[in-house]
Amino acid sequence: MANFSLYLIRHGIAAERGEAYPNDCDRPLTEEGRRKTRQVAKRLATLGLRFDLLLTSPLVRARQTAEIFTETVGYDCPLEVSQELAPEGDFDAWLNWWKAWQQSKTTSGDVALGLIGHEPDLSTWAEMLVWGDVRSVIVLKKAGVIGLAVPEPTSPVGSSILFLVIPPKLLI
Amino acid sequence: MANFSLYLIRHGIAAERGEAYPNDCDRPLTEEGRRKTRQVAKRLATLGLRFDLLLTSPLVRARQTAEIFTETVGYDCPLEVSQELAPEGDFDAWLNWWKAWQQSKTTSGDVALGLIGHEPDLSTWAEMLVWGDVRSVIVLKKAGVIGLAVPEPTSPVGSSILFLVIPPKLLI
Repeated sequence: MANFSLYLIRHGIAAERGEAYPNDCDRPLTEEGRRKTRQVAKRLATLGLRFDLLLTSPLVRARQTAEIFTETVGYDCPLEVSQELAPEGDFDAWLNWWKAWQQSKTTSGDVALGLIGHEPDLSTWAEMLVWGDVRSVIVLKKAGVIGLAVPEPTSPVGSSILFLVIPPKLLI
Repeated sequence: MANFSLYLIRHGIAAERGEAYPNDCDRPLTEEGRRKTRQVAKRLATLGLRFDLLLTSPLVRARQTAEIFTETVGYDCPLEVSQELAPEGDFDAWLNWWKAWQQSKTTSGDVALGLIGHEPDLSTWAEMLVWGDVRSVIVLKKAGVIGLAVPEPTSPVGSSILFLVIPPKLLI
């Protein structure tokens, strides 16, 4: 049986909403956001982290974050856009997807999924997986990462293990 | 009012129990344990972390870890031995100490306390502070660090915020 890890990654620093980007969905990463995200992705790759799949929110700032990860040496992995990762995303729908994905992995060894999305969704999803309910007690900075070990029971809700909560400055 | 941070730091890699160290309390850090602990302490200092006080378990491997922190540039802070941080430590007694210490800090600004101790105590204490009960869902590696923001209510139990869970390899 495989060992499943889940990495919840918040998009990097994005341009403010305003005349240039009246639509929140279109806000791109700033230069600083790109640079820091690249440094985080490189550092994690150097440490040996590999993703079997990256799922990203459809919003521009998340897709750009995901592309930086896939372009970084060591992250040569499939990238898929998931509507469930858009802001106010659908945790239950994602959970059904996850269970099916987990069951499709019949190999042993380490399997890692990366989710690129938004706050407060990602930290609340992490809380659901670890504790089974939400109290908004985890801080996830932009380009920060939460790492969970997810077992393979009927449901990972309330049965996952938290091994990583890291702001980008510790990876840069 | 000050902003209180609490860093729970597990001692570094220690010598195995055996003929040389029949008593668990006497096991010292190994060379690798010293080296990694020094790297973690240096990295955190470089990132600007300063402790106002370090409390350590009385066991040799914890005291040696604490001494490495105080010897590291930037951690020129008081170090006290606390019986409450020994294995199977007394969380309630420590909590009373913490409340008194918190109340004694009348300045504004950032105040940081470091605790050097053992597992599973440190991660369960973190869970108590963040979640109010213990489900053993946080992994704290040797020389790893958990960071909490602790508010100043009557009790920090179940009201602290988790901003850091980091294995040493990400700091080295």
